[in-house]
Amino acid sequence: MSKDYLAARRKKLISLLKRRGAEAILITSETNVTYLTGFSGDSSFLLIGKGQTVLISDGRYTTQLEEECPDLDVHIRKATESMITAVQQVLKKSHLPKLGFESHIVTCELLDAMSGISPAAQWIPISGMVEELRMIKDASEIQEIREAVQQAQRGFEVFRAMLTPEMTELQGAHELEHAMRRFGARQAAFDPIVAVGERAALPHAMPTEKLLADSPFLLVDWGAMTQKGYRSDLTRMIVHGRPPAKLEKVYQTVLKAQRAAIKAIRPGVLCQDVDRVARAVIEKAGYGKQFTHSLGHGIGLDIHEGPRLGGNVATELKPGMIVTVEPGIYLPGWGGVRIEDDVLVTRNGHEVMTSVPKDYESASL
Amino acid sequence: MSKDYLAARRKKLISLLKRRGAEAILITSETNVTYLTGFSGDSSFLLIGKGQTVLISDGRYTTQLEEECPDLDVHIRKATESMITAVQQVLKKSHLPKLGFESHIVTCELLDAMSGISPAAQWIPISGMVEELRMIKDASEIQEIREAVQQAQRGFEVFRAMLTPEMTELQGAHELEHAMRRFGARQAAFDPIVAVGERAALPHAMPTEKLLADSPFLLVDWGAMTQKGYRSDLTRMIVHGRPPAKLEKVYQTVLKAQRAAIKAIRPGVLCQDVDRVARAVIEKAGYGKQFTHSLGHGIGLDIHEGPRLGGNVATELKPGMIVTVEPGIYLPGWGGVRIEDDVLVTRNGHEVMTSVPKDYESASL
Repeated sequence: MSKDYLAARRKKLISLLKRRGAEAILITSETNVTYLTGFSGDSSFLLIGKGQTVLISDGRYTTQLEEECPDLDVHIRKATESMITAVQQVLKKSHLPKLGFESHIVTCELLDAMSGISPAAQWIPISGMVEELRMIKDASEIQEIREAVQQAQRGFEVFRAMLTPEMTELQGAHELEHAMRRFGARQAAFDPIVAVGERAALPHAMPTEKLLADSPFLLVDWGAMTQKGYRSDLTRMIVHGRPPAKLEKVYQTVLKAQRAAIKAIRPGVLCQDVDRVARAVIEKAGYGKQFTHSLGHGIGLDIHEGPRLGGNVATELKPGMIVTVEPGIYLPGWGGVRIEDDVLVTRNGHEVMTSVPKDYESASL
Repeated sequence: MSKDYLAARRKKLISLLKRRGAEAILITSETNVTYLTGFSGDSSFLLIGKGQTVLISDGRYTTQLEEECPDLDVHIRKATESMITAVQQVLKKSHLPKLGFESHIVTCELLDAMSGISPAAQWIPISGMVEELRMIKDASEIQEIREAVQQAQRGFEVFRAMLTPEMTELQGAHELEHAMRRFGARQAAFDPIVAVGERAALPHAMPTEKLLADSPFLLVDWGAMTQKGYRSDLTRMIVHGRPPAKLEKVYQTVLKAQRAAIKAIRPGVLCQDVDRVARAVIEKAGYGKQFTHSLGHGIGLDIHEGPRLGGNVATELKPGMIVTVEPGIYLPGWGGVRIEDDVLVTRNGHEVMTSVPKDYESASL
């Protein structure tokens, strides 16, 4: 990732901090440290404020830090020095009486320990500030997510070509992850869902020993994670043999809802209104109670980030947000249908980043 | 997992709680909830005290909870009800003025919210109580870890048979994980390390595009995770072509240290003394400064748990503990050697659970 993008993120954070009365913040979320520095290791904190940025890490990462963050000050703690002692050392040099901390990440035990080491400092709880920045993707992040989409889509093609009736859900899920890795993914973005027949009625089905042959349709919800940690998230149905007539009816309803919702995406629209568009289509078809979750969520370094496309979310869509659009209809004991794409909010509207065919006919093997 | 084992764990926890002046504890660590209930999902809390055990979860898990925890009281929160509100509902019914919480897990933000909902209750910080129980494995856990060892070892055999000079570290790591899944693993216990030549000098090397052909030796550190979440952890060297003479010298030193340390494992011995035994062998050979980490760690539902076999750990070994024994020698720019097995502390001594050959000759392809 270009240093310029990283520096711009840190600059934005520092300007937000001022408004909260903090001179600096100790970033303890691994993902937020990665977002602000490009460092891909773990067990490291970042002290960041005007005029100073220090990454506190340990000896395992000395070489990696030189490669990934050549322009950052780094404090490498010794094997005998705890993280708390290392934070204390860094703070001693910095003279910051008003320090923010991530109150949604820091445990009670860690705050106690930090208060103990620097009694003069005032620790200010700050929640979700970096996550708020992360909602708007910059050009380098959009590029990473395009790569994650590509890895997921090429992996899916291979997986689809490999399917046999004797395969279990678990084997299918493993083949799919392996296929995405062949195209450069570090790993799956999350444990893939391969849900045969009635198991597709569970929105978070874990793959089992059930055979693909057990039903003429299955649901696949999958995504890839790039080497740098960015993720994609898609869902498609696969139909083989002779599906029940109801499947097409349910499928077309979900597809209509998904297309209508995507069409509604543009800057200035509220998340809850996009959710409403999809829900209205499904309610009209008589399946309102069977659409049991929100319409979608942001993706990025985490598989679920802001903004959520949900019923009570008044967040305004802005250019650079990337959200999933994934309506579903779930009929316990029978099965379910979900269709999911990743959508970038652009200056004038939106761009669908994913391109696996989704009309009903193309679901057939 | 048999209900009896789970009930026994909860009973032990309740007796520990009493001594700390708490009538119940709210368990918020996902892994600790799994340990105490057998539930394998996430986003769920467990309120446990004398005379009551309530699992607080959501609608996605209704079916799974019936299957996995048929004997537990379950509170399913509605889609519109936050976790905090659900906790409040459950607490209302239970009348517990003195409640423990996991202070090493609960974030400052969550504690604030919990204090707000039940102002009458006194929240008592309790750290690492379930983790302490988890250090001693019961028979069902030992069985699970045996399965994780088996999955890792069979996967390694397949992986070893597949190696070609044109393979990259990354491809190797992916093939290894895929092979373990063929033998029933849910996933790798951690991202496998496949480190060619000089990259083996990094104890936590991330796989890269480096070719296996680039050096006559490589280090592989891997393990499997069973469907129930238990893990194994091994390291072996693989030698092909003509290795430098130094490799055998370093290898034999590490192997001697590892065997001596394993021999020292029995109930009553301190963790630091086992570490000392391995370190003494390596120091005597002149590589003391190149053995840069602790000798080993416990394994179970997490890849790193207690007890740590480290220089300043005065914990006594007890029957049922399972630890890795993994001395290493790291020579920056040249490479490194580590050999790792999983060892169960038995009533009279120990049992090495892993059985991949480790004499120098068997490292050769």
